[in-house]
Amino acid sequence: MAAIPPPAKERLLRIMRILEKNGGRPLTSAEAEAITGWPRETIRKDISCLEAEALGTSSGYAPELLIPAIRKALGLDRRRLFCIVGLGRLGSAYLNFSGDAGAAGQAGLPGIAAWEEFQLAAGFDSNVNRIEILKSAVPLYPAYKIPEVVSRLSIELALLCVPVEAAQASAEKLAAAGIRGILNFTPLTLKLPPQAAVRNVSPVDELRALAVLPIK
Amino acid sequence: MAAIPPPAKERLLRIMRILEKNGGRPLTSAEAEAITGWPRETIRKDISCLEAEALGTSSGYAPELLIPAIRKALGLDRRRLFCIVGLGRLGSAYLNFSGDAGAAGQAGLPGIAAWEEFQLAAGFDSNVNRIEILKSAVPLYPAYKIPEVVSRLSIELALLCVPVEAAQASAEKLAAAGIRGILNFTPLTLKLPPQAAVRNVSPVDELRALAVLPIK
Repeated sequence: MAAIPPPAKERLLRIMRILEKNGGRPLTSAEAEAITGWPRETIRKDISCLEAEALGTSSGYAPELLIPAIRKALGLDRRRLFCIVGLGRLGSAYLNFSGDAGAAGQAGLPGIAAWEEFQLAAGFDSNVNRIEILKSAVPLYPAYKIPEVVSRLSIELALLCVPVEAAQASAEKLAAAGIRGILNFTPLTLKLPPQAAVRNVSPVDELRALAVLPIK
Repeated sequence: MAAIPPPAKERLLRIMRILEKNGGRPLTSAEAEAITGWPRETIRKDISCLEAEALGTSSGYAPELLIPAIRKALGLDRRRLFCIVGLGRLGSAYLNFSGDAGAAGQAGLPGIAAWEEFQLAAGFDSNVNRIEILKSAVPLYPAYKIPEVVSRLSIELALLCVPVEAAQASAEKLAAAGIRGILNFTPLTLKLPPQAAVRNVSPVDELRALAVLPIK
């Protein structure tokens, strides 16, 4: 299969998300255009990158066909392990987060099992008392064990929820242990070797976008 | 001033963010291109939309000139009030969040005061016990007071952190009270009148993007 260019990957992720939340109904390229603002020709071309068999009918793309096709093309068809570093309020909030899968179960929605792509494998905090007190379905470790545990379990991704003054050192420890990607919830700009990707999650950025951009 | 098209607004938000995190140093369009992947001509054209006076020198755009110019052009030069609805682990994590301003202060970084654009004005939860127990610098109210408080204080934005089964009803209450935008931390797709914008914040989407997209 030809390599899918990054902007097309980004659009396919969004289309997959829309399909997952569409209650099992098919989605036409015209509907996708109305939701995303992208021209339907672009959307059709992105989907044609998948080189899959017929993905729907005249009534639209079928979620049960297109979701697995996108997932496979983007390499999201295998489970990745992640960890949470920093178990204060924010980190511990994600510790017992059942994600979309659990939520979908509660709400009785079909086809949403996204969280299952990512499995929480461990939590870390420098405060040993906190580790002992917190309830968790996964093992919690003191922060100095990051190198050993991340490497032993082949944990690929991390949610970085430590205080800002500990952010760079924690990120470096993760990168040295072979982590592939970090969701950075701190406001610090992390400086890491290129093999460790960083994605910044900031409520300020989200509020700004909400205040400034038209959103559907 | 001519209206700035939404894609240019989105790029300007990103440029502003890069400048804020650049430690007070000027930024050239070539550097901005290397960080964002957008052609430098596009970046220059976006900045020319600002119709401001000279924003830098040959050594780059000056943060002390360009940040306020972007802020003004995008309407981010006035403070907006926001509230948090749902004060479980996630909601309460944001309750005492000092944001970038506090973090910048701690880390001694200059020029980052983004959180000041958004001022937390109130928190809401349906559980009255929880409201009484939580420590907070802002007043906390039972959820049934959302209409009265949001409208009286002219709160514009909300972080929606309630359990998924309460999400749609809470969002409708906020919209009816005149909220302009909701950051939806629940996995539910909210159905709201067009005057209330919604932006979905999902750790699953972020993890997917981190796993799939090249990120600098």
